[in-house]
Amino acid sequence: MRILLDGMGGDHAPEVIVEGAVAAAKEIKDKITIIGHEDKIRACLAKYGTISEKIEVIDASEEITNDEAPVKAVRTKKDSSIVKGLNMVKNKEADVFLSAGSTGALLAGGLFILGRIQGIDRPTLATVYPVIGMQPSLLVDTGANAECKPGNLLEFATMGSIYMEKVLKRENPTVGLVNNGTEEGKGTTLTKAAYELLSKSNLNFIGSIEARSLQDGICDIIVTDGFTGNAIIKLTEGMGLMVLREMKRRFLSTTKSKLGAVLLKDQLSEIKKEFNYAEYGGAPLLGVKGALLKMHGSSDALAVKQTIMKAIPYVEENVVDTIQNSVLEIEEILISE
Amino acid sequence: MRILLDGMGGDHAPEVIVEGAVAAAKEIKDKITIIGHEDKIRACLAKYGTISEKIEVIDASEEITNDEAPVKAVRTKKDSSIVKGLNMVKNKEADVFLSAGSTGALLAGGLFILGRIQGIDRPTLATVYPVIGMQPSLLVDTGANAECKPGNLLEFATMGSIYMEKVLKRENPTVGLVNNGTEEGKGTTLTKAAYELLSKSNLNFIGSIEARSLQDGICDIIVTDGFTGNAIIKLTEGMGLMVLREMKRRFLSTTKSKLGAVLLKDQLSEIKKEFNYAEYGGAPLLGVKGALLKMHGSSDALAVKQTIMKAIPYVEENVVDTIQNSVLEIEEILISE
Repeated sequence: MRILLDGMGGDHAPEVIVEGAVAAAKEIKDKITIIGHEDKIRACLAKYGTISEKIEVIDASEEITNDEAPVKAVRTKKDSSIVKGLNMVKNKEADVFLSAGSTGALLAGGLFILGRIQGIDRPTLATVYPVIGMQPSLLVDTGANAECKPGNLLEFATMGSIYMEKVLKRENPTVGLVNNGTEEGKGTTLTKAAYELLSKSNLNFIGSIEARSLQDGICDIIVTDGFTGNAIIKLTEGMGLMVLREMKRRFLSTTKSKLGAVLLKDQLSEIKKEFNYAEYGGAPLLGVKGALLKMHGSSDALAVKQTIMKAIPYVEENVVDTIQNSVLEIEEILISE
Repeated sequence: MRILLDGMGGDHAPEVIVEGAVAAAKEIKDKITIIGHEDKIRACLAKYGTISEKIEVIDASEEITNDEAPVKAVRTKKDSSIVKGLNMVKNKEADVFLSAGSTGALLAGGLFILGRIQGIDRPTLATVYPVIGMQPSLLVDTGANAECKPGNLLEFATMGSIYMEKVLKRENPTVGLVNNGTEEGKGTTLTKAAYELLSKSNLNFIGSIEARSLQDGICDIIVTDGFTGNAIIKLTEGMGLMVLREMKRRFLSTTKSKLGAVLLKDQLSEIKKEFNYAEYGGAPLLGVKGALLKMHGSSDALAVKQTIMKAIPYVEENVVDTIQNSVLEIEEILISE
């Protein structure tokens, strides 16, 4: 298997990308390749001695930044790490592409270069949703599709369930629909219709859930439109930062509290670790004809390494083909409407 | 001024309603009346000695529960505390009605009994949104309108700004629109159109905001549709509970950490207090022809008292009339489209 990493994406590229790749290379046999400005990447690799010989580098002379209009950038920057990388996946020269670069460019590139799986209307960005103190859920959609039709939510749930089973190794995962109440008949035109479709599916659908219950680990797959999903993931992140900020500020306020914080050092760093998204690896773009994992722009080396570890079952378990095979079932539910 | 309290609404009625009313009666001169099963309320009041003589009780023989279909309940239970209470506001026998009862019944009652202010398409439930370590924001809409038109968001922002100025005493409050990105052109059909309308208004509009920034106190008025608003308030509540649960679990795990927790007692109870919604008082239903405050079902006596304290400026500052006077301005922006 060849795992292809975007050396230029993210706030701390290429340093942390290289560091994460080196950490993974120590543990796995699969081939790791980094694409981007070759000289810069090689300069970083030089620090790591012989292990770096296990990592291949492919040059790409251009870069797509977060400020660029994504569609135009993907159309014009043919020698960027993102465009060249996705083309390598398309041409079977790589099995999976990992990038902490522009989300917009990766979505556009996923759609235009890899292309949608036939029968899938809207590919979805699926984010591992941290549930503090418990195993994480998977949130679909996390922002790829701000406006959705009911059938899109059925697609998201189906693709999310496949990824959860194959990559996160949870059998028969439960699916919950984010709604503004759990009582029957609650919801918008969209959620009411999606509820009907999900009820007809073979998914392990548990019904409507409220955002209040997400941190109770109420279900494995959290299904919602990309606008709400975006608000959920960003609010969760913001709340996590706030909690850490407020604990720090207050716990350092007096001599007595500082001593208390010292005694609680282990517990506080445990909490901090759980709020750290890096632990959970990247977000797959499901529904395109190839394996693509988007990493957070602020990813550190650990996040890069964890995403590489997730990329292996993503490829080995044929997630893309399994999604392809699920299309008929989705279509039958939609046609029966 | 006569402040009218629903004695029967909420998880701990009538005990906490009476307790909160007694606490407020010690501080204010305004007349407090409790409506509901008279014998039950009087039995609770008896505990509090002479102060209870300041509190009047009006009998209502029926109750509306959370499980009932709200519209039907409001139409048929004429002698319920909610229906009778709202009719008293309508007939100027009371100046404001406070209830921790069924949200659905209060919304239905607000619309059918008090009626919409002429020119307001959709009244909004405005919730004080706690920002830990800072002054709170106001979130509109919090669930009264799951599906919205762009003009509704302009209404929510206008009414929320008026309530913020008059009741929470913040001058020229800033307004932020919840969106899936802050870059220009980001958003759904709804948020893009609402952005245009808000830009044309005289409100202190600061543009699109991301849910990530809500806990930074980014703006005074957070504007969004009721579906997203519901998800935001419930996720915030769920995250708060989770943080308290996880801190407790971990801090009590070893003898050393227990000692640390003892030293941090003040700071931990400060954090707990800030996560306690009770501190912030009830949510007004803005846009109806009368003052109505909805309290959380799990409100304790402190929440009841705080809501009574908010009810006073709500009435004294003529929030309802001020909203009535803002309608023309809203209509002019909508017509210019």
